[in-house]
Amino acid sequence: MRLGFDLGGTNLAYGAVDAKGTLLEKGSVALTDITPEAIVKLMVDIFQDLDPRHHFKKVGIGVPGIVSQKEGVVVKLVNLHWVLVPLVDMLQEKIALPISVGNDANAACIAEVLFGGMAGYQDAILLTLGTGLGGGVISGGKLLLGHQGAGSELGHMVVGANDVDCNCGRNGCIETFVSATALVRHYNLLNSESPVHDAKSVFDRLSNGDEAADQTLNWFCDHFATGIVNLYNIFAPEVIAIGGGVAKAFPQFESRLNHMVQSRVFSKDIAYGKIVEATLGNDAGIIGAAYLDAFL
Amino acid sequence: MRLGFDLGGTNLAYGAVDAKGTLLEKGSVALTDITPEAIVKLMVDIFQDLDPRHHFKKVGIGVPGIVSQKEGVVVKLVNLHWVLVPLVDMLQEKIALPISVGNDANAACIAEVLFGGMAGYQDAILLTLGTGLGGGVISGGKLLLGHQGAGSELGHMVVGANDVDCNCGRNGCIETFVSATALVRHYNLLNSESPVHDAKSVFDRLSNGDEAADQTLNWFCDHFATGIVNLYNIFAPEVIAIGGGVAKAFPQFESRLNHMVQSRVFSKDIAYGKIVEATLGNDAGIIGAAYLDAFL
Repeated sequence: MRLGFDLGGTNLAYGAVDAKGTLLEKGSVALTDITPEAIVKLMVDIFQDLDPRHHFKKVGIGVPGIVSQKEGVVVKLVNLHWVLVPLVDMLQEKIALPISVGNDANAACIAEVLFGGMAGYQDAILLTLGTGLGGGVISGGKLLLGHQGAGSELGHMVVGANDVDCNCGRNGCIETFVSATALVRHYNLLNSESPVHDAKSVFDRLSNGDEAADQTLNWFCDHFATGIVNLYNIFAPEVIAIGGGVAKAFPQFESRLNHMVQSRVFSKDIAYGKIVEATLGNDAGIIGAAYLDAFL
Repeated sequence: MRLGFDLGGTNLAYGAVDAKGTLLEKGSVALTDITPEAIVKLMVDIFQDLDPRHHFKKVGIGVPGIVSQKEGVVVKLVNLHWVLVPLVDMLQEKIALPISVGNDANAACIAEVLFGGMAGYQDAILLTLGTGLGGGVISGGKLLLGHQGAGSELGHMVVGANDVDCNCGRNGCIETFVSATALVRHYNLLNSESPVHDAKSVFDRLSNGDEAADQTLNWFCDHFATGIVNLYNIFAPEVIAIGGGVAKAFPQFESRLNHMVQSRVFSKDIAYGKIVEATLGNDAGIIGAAYLDAFL
């Protein structure tokens, strides 16, 4: 049995994960103090509470930032204002088990490849489509980390010019086209008289034949296809799974996205990876955190 | 001792490579017959000629196309009109040694990481800047191949809109901005009264203070920097080497390229990889072909 933590900007989710990726127990606590010391204490408390029932053999933590997984150090975690936090060392003082810390999108990717929508593949990419666009890559059976764990920031691949800059400082990052934020913003540019406040509303209006929603989805899929074909050309994955909050709407844009992707592939002689919906939902972060050591 | 072959569109180059990556003997023959059978015969002849002197232990071939290195099959080689050629099996009938076949840019990347400008790094990218833009990636000490070897086509990453389509069918592939072809084309758009016929002339004119050459290099470096920062965000390499014919001019654009790259990096807290010139020149293809099995 393994213990997985999924650290978010406001909550710490956790779960006891068995060898089949099933969550036997899970929970979530709100963060009141975001210092590393407070969060380490919270994790130790949860571990001590659950361990008597589950007898953990490993512990893993996924965090929404840049992590040097090899060194067990959170390099940069903007939401919590952490820089260079030696999280594994801090936890190791209280928990005498193998501990891993990694990026949360990497964790979700691992979970989908071990137990979810990409089970069994050796070349697989997860795109987490929420407020922004995150990514995890397993290439040739190995998790892409990059030096100091700073790789796999797939949302910050420039694919064209946009009318708004990315918060990373560049213009044209794919997450400024392909994210819940981008959907809402673009829809409201087209229909300023009746704006939406969330991506779900764009899809609801699409179902009702709304013209601006249709145009927004074309714009979204156009740039998404550009990014996906870039990833095909770079990684030649066998499968790409789409996760995150917006993935629920995947059936509403799957066929137009596939159509655009297929018309742009580099070579018709290559069988490029299919695009599927991730299957583990929010649990992927906890499950994958428990298995961060799976594809090293 | 290993035998490396570098198969081009018009020539077959070869060399005997020792354990330090030194070429003890090399040569090149023009291709008169581009069928797989004829080229296999050529390779076998060269092997039989050289083997008595060098006592080879391994043979490797780099080809400018998509190769399933795992299966030893050339999937697609446009220049020679090859599709699904089982090159290793064909050679194996005549050469009873371990044989590898792989992509030529991957081979050059391997050579630069083993013996050249990127020696010793675990996260390294080679960009081969010639008529087009090729790439090889070693990530976490492992060569990026992708499913069926179709990955690492870094030149076909769309980074923006261009006024000419790429020959892959998309618009905005980085090689339509960053290649000898692109330099010549863009320069001639700016100075149609006195056009150039090769990239070297653009750099020669740059040295002489030519305004159109200066503008061309800005345009080139602008898009090159976009692509390099994309690669930083995707792979977080420790080093990127620039090889290929245009790399000779690297000192003429190094500082403006670095300046643009540094102004666009995702996080100032991360030490992104330096950009260097590849050091092995044309020999990289032969040397790396002999070591295609080095980072599997």
